[in-house]
Amino acid sequence: MADVALSLEYLHALAVDVLTSNGLDNSHAEALAKVLVAGQRDECQSHGVWRLLGCVKTLRTGKLNGSAEPRVHDVAPALVKVDAQFGFSPLPFEIGSRILVEKARKTGIAALAINNCFHFSALWPEIEALAAQGVAALAMVPSHSCVAPAGGTRPLFGTNPIAFGWPRPEGVPFVFDMATSRIARGEIELHRRAGLKIPNDWAIDDEGQPTDDPERALKGAMMTFGGYKGSALAAMVELLAGPLIGDMISQESLEFDEGLGAAPCHGELVIAFDPSVFGGADAGDNAHRAEALFAGIVGQGARLPSQRRFEARERSVKHGVTLSAELHADLLALSKSQDRNADACGRS
Amino acid sequence: MADVALSLEYLHALAVDVLTSNGLDNSHAEALAKVLVAGQRDECQSHGVWRLLGCVKTLRTGKLNGSAEPRVHDVAPALVKVDAQFGFSPLPFEIGSRILVEKARKTGIAALAINNCFHFSALWPEIEALAAQGVAALAMVPSHSCVAPAGGTRPLFGTNPIAFGWPRPEGVPFVFDMATSRIARGEIELHRRAGLKIPNDWAIDDEGQPTDDPERALKGAMMTFGGYKGSALAAMVELLAGPLIGDMISQESLEFDEGLGAAPCHGELVIAFDPSVFGGADAGDNAHRAEALFAGIVGQGARLPSQRRFEARERSVKHGVTLSAELHADLLALSKSQDRNADACGRS
Repeated sequence: MADVALSLEYLHALAVDVLTSNGLDNSHAEALAKVLVAGQRDECQSHGVWRLLGCVKTLRTGKLNGSAEPRVHDVAPALVKVDAQFGFSPLPFEIGSRILVEKARKTGIAALAINNCFHFSALWPEIEALAAQGVAALAMVPSHSCVAPAGGTRPLFGTNPIAFGWPRPEGVPFVFDMATSRIARGEIELHRRAGLKIPNDWAIDDEGQPTDDPERALKGAMMTFGGYKGSALAAMVELLAGPLIGDMISQESLEFDEGLGAAPCHGELVIAFDPSVFGGADAGDNAHRAEALFAGIVGQGARLPSQRRFEARERSVKHGVTLSAELHADLLALSKSQDRNADACGRS
Repeated sequence: MADVALSLEYLHALAVDVLTSNGLDNSHAEALAKVLVAGQRDECQSHGVWRLLGCVKTLRTGKLNGSAEPRVHDVAPALVKVDAQFGFSPLPFEIGSRILVEKARKTGIAALAINNCFHFSALWPEIEALAAQGVAALAMVPSHSCVAPAGGTRPLFGTNPIAFGWPRPEGVPFVFDMATSRIARGEIELHRRAGLKIPNDWAIDDEGQPTDDPERALKGAMMTFGGYKGSALAAMVELLAGPLIGDMISQESLEFDEGLGAAPCHGELVIAFDPSVFGGADAGDNAHRAEALFAGIVGQGARLPSQRRFEARERSVKHGVTLSAELHADLLALSKSQDRNADACGRS
């Protein structure tokens, strides 16, 4: 099947339709659609609208509460916790991030902990939302055990991403969002389907030995990026976004799933830094100093993280996105309004 | 020359003597000796007492103020800044960390920014000091440009270490302290002296090409660990411990040195998290959860970071340390009390 060209508005409406048609409240569906369409817009396929299939699967497991009402706990001057009540994470993030930013403006640094949430999205939409309000931010989440600690033999850590953002006075912020695993599990899967071997620093087999066989790798564990250093960071993510905030480590999250294959349910930690509080009267000079760093990176031909994503965004905002006709049909089949006409709603 | 056996008490007194004999105030000398002797005790040679030679060199450049009186600025409810006034970092850290912990106990999360300090030590002594008070902590510093961004050709970042600690109810804390560079510059130097080639993922030459020649590597730049992911983290360290807190990035710090070879002068950021505020009534359960993670690591034969260091500590506390007779002689030559008798003061 060919690709279909779709406008961002159409895709958002379709995503909301798919989600509400499968039992998710409208406020959650709007918040979730926003981050998944943003992924598609940025050609970040792994976190684009195909994840709607996983969201629907998660809704159907009965583990997730589609009508969850996030509860805010204003714990301390620099700490807000939001109990997601076993709903998806984007809505509790929207609610909590407003309080997080208010706090950071007063206290300099502040933290938002989201508990009991099904986390389905990339972290950069959350980081970008904070950077847009002028604060630097650091976020992390565990996931389901699939990564072995360096020197280990079995899955323990999740892919445990860390994301960071720095607001820039002009244009897009400095943003990265990276798994602490060597690669995404999906990349091993793609190699398996294509009958290709994988590099032998990606994963270990179920006996703890490095393997180039994707089949054996999927039964074993992924490695962390950067050896024991990446492993240390993965452990930090478990601790800060797990026990610190009173939520599950990746191993507990996997057990909680009971093999149903829902999205991982766990906590999330987001830290915000207000450069105007840290810098006081010098905040403007400090911003220039950061720009000098970025100039030092791009001036020698290196790229800033997320650069490809921002280029894709520019294209998509102008021209819309393309989706495989197959995925589009799958999404239509999951929505109530199956009579949508892609051509009528798509880009001209 | 043979090695000499020394007690930790003797070594501390010698370190203080070396520093005060070369123009450092006693309060600074005590604080600095503590961290350097701790490095020696933990057999962390790269951050042990040989660094005293560099401290003396730094004192002699005239860049450092040996009598600097750190100034505390209580900026916001969760932020304290300490202006080190161009002195060494350990004393301002001691002063600032007390306020940091007080703040974290009230606000949940808090930050300490140290400005204008010459940073000479590892970060783990600072992290351990905080963990001993029951708070988790994250610390980072830039240094002097010697690392290229991934995809780049020239030094821009410093070795930019990140350290993290988690307090444990029994025994030593979980602690890591890692450079975001692929290796320490000293390791390339050691290969050069030994006439050995280096692995070609350590460094690039001055034309930006990967090299296995340590000579060319030293004229070029080191690589970050873990490719573009380590590079992103190195940039984060520059931003948070530089522009955010109103201090120099590694490139400015190198320029500030004017080729004198002093210790790097820059800022430092330390973040403290109080698990009892984050966890409330569940803090005890949360601590057990963290222990389950550690059990999951060591239970599969992997090591916790710093494990070798803690084992060395146990040995050194019992039996003292050994130093090369050459280094010992060099230190004696730099101290006023050159008639010290190592045998009389050393271990029995």
